[in-house]
Amino acid sequence: MKLYDAAFPPSPRRVRVFLAEKGLDVPRVAVDLAAMEHHGEAFSRVNPLQRVPALELDDGQIITESAAICRYFEALHPEPPLFGRTPEEIAKVDMWMRRVEFGLYATIAAVFRHSHPAMKTSEVPQCAEWADLNRPRVLEELAFLNAALEGRSWLATDTYTAADIALLCAVDFMRPIRIAIPDDHANLKRWHEAASNRPSAKA
Amino acid sequence: MKLYDAAFPPSPRRVRVFLAEKGLDVPRVAVDLAAMEHHGEAFSRVNPLQRVPALELDDGQIITESAAICRYFEALHPEPPLFGRTPEEIAKVDMWMRRVEFGLYATIAAVFRHSHPAMKTSEVPQCAEWADLNRPRVLEELAFLNAALEGRSWLATDTYTAADIALLCAVDFMRPIRIAIPDDHANLKRWHEAASNRPSAKA
Repeated sequence: MKLYDAAFPPSPRRVRVFLAEKGLDVPRVAVDLAAMEHHGEAFSRVNPLQRVPALELDDGQIITESAAICRYFEALHPEPPLFGRTPEEIAKVDMWMRRVEFGLYATIAAVFRHSHPAMKTSEVPQCAEWADLNRPRVLEELAFLNAALEGRSWLATDTYTAADIALLCAVDFMRPIRIAIPDDHANLKRWHEAASNRPSAKA
Repeated sequence: MKLYDAAFPPSPRRVRVFLAEKGLDVPRVAVDLAAMEHHGEAFSRVNPLQRVPALELDDGQIITESAAICRYFEALHPEPPLFGRTPEEIAKVDMWMRRVEFGLYATIAAVFRHSHPAMKTSEVPQCAEWADLNRPRVLEELAFLNAALEGRSWLATDTYTAADIALLCAVDFMRPIRIAIPDDHANLKRWHEAASNRPSAKA
């Protein structure tokens, strides 16, 4: 088994943090995105979608999509459960993960892809108006999440889950678009400090 | 238990088709989107995000996000399995569901939300350039899916799964943006006919 990985982007980081929380060590192959290695012939054979992460199984099958890779490891190694235990928890982890992905993460990615100079060769053409429309929405999503974390340690259940990992990787991806958690978002700031202090955050 | 539902949009339809495949009957409450009932005070108390579907549990808890609602029912009623059985199947169903959601569905929704006259009051402001950028991408996603279905009955595994349901609801949502499956996409056309002929498609 081999995990095609890259240091900077949020999606491969989600898988690394997930594996660290599970205590799993999976052989990794670094893909050099700065050198456009993901668009090269060799990696395109692994993943025609030219994206990391990608997990190559021992029989050569390829799993892509960070959440799908995490679910694979959850099914193989159920402990500790990071996608919920009961039907209610399973629903809530998926619900919050999706709220983060389609809400906060999608708006951050829209700003990054359509306004950052580093994305000029990957996102063709960049749509400046779309980036501008999404920038204030990032702040709306942060306010929504701050309210949701009132009186809660973690986002979806009483324990740290895949929804928290998605949120951590999304929030830290605000750095290249120069947005920080607003100072008055005390719940989200407390949550971010706790998530960042877990050893898995460094994975 | 109560499922807040609406006839037209693809997300509540995903839940209805899923429940029909499971043979489950859940009491439904119709929310009148044309009358903007989802933005009204009563429904906003149910789901502050003002979206359907929403599942109200007997203790008053609310689950939103169509896929999360489906996972709740999968956990309660595992048969027939619609999210995969083995770790590999579980990963592949999620992978294909996400490829449909973030690929085909997201591009269709971008065109619909940012160009359709009916969305003028919900999507403020509409970004015509964003709609125009996404229209050709819908066709790229269709070509990708047509190729993926070569030699396969269903998208993710040997049986009908939640990934097929996501694809069915996405493809049928191309009608308001006036895009049809191109005639030379024989695999996707065959797949669409088979999926549409299942009794669940009428749910």
